[in-house]
Formats: sequence, structure tokens, C-alpha cells
Amino acid sequence: MKNIVVGIDIGGTNTVIGVVDNTGEIIVETSFETQPFKNDKAFSQHLISEIRYLLNDLANVNLLGIGIGAPNANYFSGKIESAPNIPWAKDVSLAAILNKEFNVVVKLTNDANAAALGEMLYGNAKGLTDFILITLGTGLGSGFVSNGKLILGHDGFAGEMGHITAVPGGRLCGCGKQGCLETYVSATGIRTTVLEMMRFLKTDSVLQKYTPKQITSKLIYEAAVDGDKLAKDVFDFTAKILGEKLADVVALTSPQAVFFFGGLSAAGDLLLVPTKNYMEQNLMPIYRNKVSLQQSALIGKNAAVLGAAALIWN
Amino acid sequence: MKNIVVGIDIGGTNTVIGVVDNTGEIIVETSFETQPFKNDKAFSQHLISEIRYLLNDLANVNLLGIGIGAPNANYFSGKIESAPNIPWAKDVSLAAILNKEFNVVVKLTNDANAAALGEMLYGNAKGLTDFILITLGTGLGSGFVSNGKLILGHDGFAGEMGHITAVPGGRLCGCGKQGCLETYVSATGIRTTVLEMMRFLKTDSVLQKYTPKQITSKLIYEAAVDGDKLAKDVFDFTAKILGEKLADVVALTSPQAVFFFGGLSAAGDLLLVPTKNYMEQNLMPIYRNKVSLQQSALIGKNAAVLGAAALIWN
Repeated sequence: MKNIVVGIDIGGTNTVIGVVDNTGEIIVETSFETQPFKNDKAFSQHLISEIRYLLNDLANVNLLGIGIGAPNANYFSGKIESAPNIPWAKDVSLAAILNKEFNVVVKLTNDANAAALGEMLYGNAKGLTDFILITLGTGLGSGFVSNGKLILGHDGFAGEMGHITAVPGGRLCGCGKQGCLETYVSATGIRTTVLEMMRFLKTDSVLQKYTPKQITSKLIYEAAVDGDKLAKDVFDFTAKILGEKLADVVALTSPQAVFFFGGLSAAGDLLLVPTKNYMEQNLMPIYRNKVSLQQSALIGKNAAVLGAAALIWN
Repeated sequence: MKNIVVGIDIGGTNTVIGVVDNTGEIIVETSFETQPFKNDKAFSQHLISEIRYLLNDLANVNLLGIGIGAPNANYFSGKIESAPNIPWAKDVSLAAILNKEFNVVVKLTNDANAAALGEMLYGNAKGLTDFILITLGTGLGSGFVSNGKLILGHDGFAGEMGHITAVPGGRLCGCGKQGCLETYVSATGIRTTVLEMMRFLKTDSVLQKYTPKQITSKLIYEAAVDGDKLAKDVFDFTAKILGEKLADVVALTSPQAVFFFGGLSAAGDLLLVPTKNYMEQNLMPIYRNKVSLQQSALIGKNAAVLGAAALIWN
């Protein structure tokens, strides 16, 4: 009998389920779209059937537990509470539902917290005691590790850097506030910036030949790499906002490194080099040239699923 | 023989030395002005003579160690490094100097971190695992406790909320940056706001009869309590900036409470009530009505000295 854990990453776009062994290898994996469910019951039922499907294919395994990373997920209550980017996720007791179904330990945390745990156990954060992991997907998630432990806060909801105010009175956010960092710095945010710049600026751009729906962060990245001025300006605009806010965050937790994960982080140096410059310009002298910004080591490997599983292996 | 600890709070204005017993009582205490020393050597020599003077008066005591809270003090290196508000404090190995002199354990941390420890051991933060302590004196210092432990950061310099950017391109700060929170929210900051408002606004105010040097945060507080419109506007302006930034900080560490200590915190509800309102307006829904803002329980008792001593009692 081989011990296994199910790791689940519920993202704004996709839900990924992986069966993980104790060496951090994902044995089997599947995924489906997160959004198109009428309600949380419909989602939960589909999730359960997908987990059963994966487990039924495996011989001689012993399921130790299920770990879940999800937006606005609460480690203490085991619930997803009002996830800004997922309409059905208002108040879902997912840990209790899966525990009843599979009769194993179920632990749940913020998707970015889970990715931070994954980075610490299997990635570039091995041996680090103080670091931040930022996921740049549909939104901006963050997991803070301090003194070698996740900062969960008194209520389990710490680590929402995506919802600090980047631009007072700025873009409306899914959380109900205005100007949140994730409305500018995320795959969605950078797309909005492109559409705004194309509407109001006269700069020629290869992106003008696409409809708004066709424009993705990947397309913007490719245009910038090809030298498109507007696309490059958009990355600079995004890096400036991110760099300024990172400088604030460094002054609070003084991390050794910040790791980036998720769709937009694939832009790599195109985003991280200018972000680092803007961050350094806004840092107090004692923090300068000490904090490295780098891509997650687990981008191909799915840090979020490994991290979700790590909730159990821990 | 009674075991004792020396706790030292080096503030931007005064340095306080207390001899503390294991019940958290300060047996004897003395203080002197921090600023008027030619260099760090002159300061250290005076500090040593004041400690000796206190200890010589005590019979049958056993000195266990010396704990120090100071601006930009580093727990890991035992040094004060470039404290923005103290000219002589560029790179002072204070832990090593006192260790050599007294031959006991010497530990040193940020003055606000020390106050946070004091609040946790003897004050309103007893039993709390996630809270923030903010000192509003010459500058704004902060100590963050998460999972029951101080967030020190990888280099010992975490917890500098006073140096997050409140107003981009705003007031020049002692740290070399512009628009740092402490240039607006501190005893010094609120004084600057009064002088700016008196210069540029035509509002009548009782404060106009004082010279700039005579205006203190205490005087501004008293004017506001007496109904002076300008003084009340100044508190509102200060509360708005502090409340907005607290909302950002809550989204990162989700504390149960924020405690206020130091000169300006004596304003109590006059500052804390509007600050709470502005904070709530800027919080993501999941954090609303969960975080209490309150004065330190140790304002009369000197939380900073007790906290500095707590570095040793721990």
C-alpha cells in the first residue's frame, strides 16, 4: 500500500486535482473549468466525481487526506467565504463536505498560501524562513511565510495583497472596493490596461488587430517581446504599480525573496526586472539590494496542487 | 538574591532605562535625552554610567541580562543601523558594547517590537496570537506579532510600517524617501500638518497665537478637544491617512487588534474613532468589524522598557 494525498487547486479559471505521493510527485492529475456551475452544490458534486474517477484508477493506495487551495479559503473554518472571482463560492463548507464523502482529514487554505507551502517544501523557497509567494492569475493572490510559518492571521484570512489599495478611487474590484492591486497587477488587470491604453492613446500597436476578447496576457507578452511599444509600456505601467506596493510590503515583513507564480508570471524578466527596479527605488535604504524577485521553481510542476497536498503531508 | 533585568528604550526623544523584576514591575527607572551626543561612543558611555548608577543603588540583585529597544535595531546583529531620527546612530554595535561592559546576555530589537512584546506579556495583548503595536512618537514604529511570534524578517528589520508610502511624492522623510507614513502620522507629522494648514488655509485657530516651536501634539489635542476647527481637521486628516494604510496592513496579516502607544496615542478616541471609520471604509468585506483599535494598556507603565526587558525574560 502506497500512501497518497489528493491536492486540489481551485483557481479563478481552472480547478486542478492531483494525486501526490510523499516525494512530491504528482501521480495523476485532472482539471476542469471552475466557473460554469449553477451553485456550490453542483461544483462540489462534480469535484467529488472527479476525485473518485482519479482514485478508482489507482491500485494499492492509501488516501491519507485531501488538501485544498482556493480563493478566500479559511484554514480555521474549512470554508470558502465570498471568493471575489467565483460567483458560486459564497459560503461553502468544502472541508466538511469532502470529509463526509471520503472520511479522511481535509484541510483548506487560500490558494496562494498553498502555493507558498509548495514552494517551501519542493521549490526555490526550501530552507527560507521569510518569503512571499505571489500568484498572478485571474487575480493576485499572496502567501506570506514568516519565522518559517504561514501568516494566517487571527481569522485565517491573512495574505490578501491583491486587495491593498494601489490606486485610490481606481478600478472597481470584484471585492467591492476600488483600486485594489489585483485590478492592475494580474492577467485580468494587464488586459484592462491594454484596452484602456488602446482607447485613449494614439500609439500604434499590433494588438489593435485583435478584438478585446482575443487579447490575453500571453498575447501582450508576445507583443512586448516583439518590441511593440504599447505592450512594453503596459508592462512598465504594471511593474511600477507592483514595485511600489512590494516596497511597502518588504518594509512590513522583510522577506528574503518574492516568488511569482501563475499565468502572468510566465512573462519572467519582462515583468520582474522593471518591477525590481521600481521596488528598489521605493525601498528604505536598509532593505535595498537584499530581496530577490524570482519565478516559482514549480511553474511546470503545479506548486498550488503540491502546496495543497503539503497541508496534509505537514 | 533577586533576579533582575535591565530594560532600555531608546526613543527619538528620550532614552529610558528601567530595572525590571520577573513580575514585570519596574523597580527603578531613569531617563535622559537621546539626541545631544556628539557620536555613538559618547552616547554609549553615558548609557553605561547611568546603568551602573541604577544598579549600584540596589542590594542583593543578580543581573540576568539587558534588553534594548531602539529605532532600526537589529535582533540578529545586535546593532542599531542608520536610525532615521537619531544623528549619532549610524552603525552602533550596542549589544556587543554592553555585553563587554556588564558580562551578561544583551538582546536588542526595534523599539516598537519591544513594546509589542511588552503588550503581549503584561498588557492588552495577553493571549493574542496576531496583533500589531504602533508607537506614535517622534516617528511611527510598529511591531507585528503573527502566530504568537514577532515578525523579524530574514534580516531582523521587519515591522517598519512608518516607512510605507502614504503619499507618493509627499513630505521628505528622515530615511531619505518621500511621503512615508510617519511624516504624516506621528507627533512630528501632526505638527507639520498644523503648520501647513495654518500657512495655507484661512481658518481661525487658537493655535495661531503660538510660535511654530511652541506647537506640540499635546497642544493640538487640547485645541481639538476645545472644539478648534483647524485642530479637529488636522486629526481627521491624520486619521484618514492612518486608516487607509491600516486597511492595507490588515489585508496582509489579519490581526485581532491594533494597539497604540507613544505621545500622540494619548489623543485616544479623538484619533482612534475616526481612524477606525476610515480603516473600515477601506477594508475588504471579509475583514470588516473584526479588528479593534485600542490604546496600549501599558501607557503609564512604559511598555517599551518592559518589552525590552521581556527580550531577556523570554
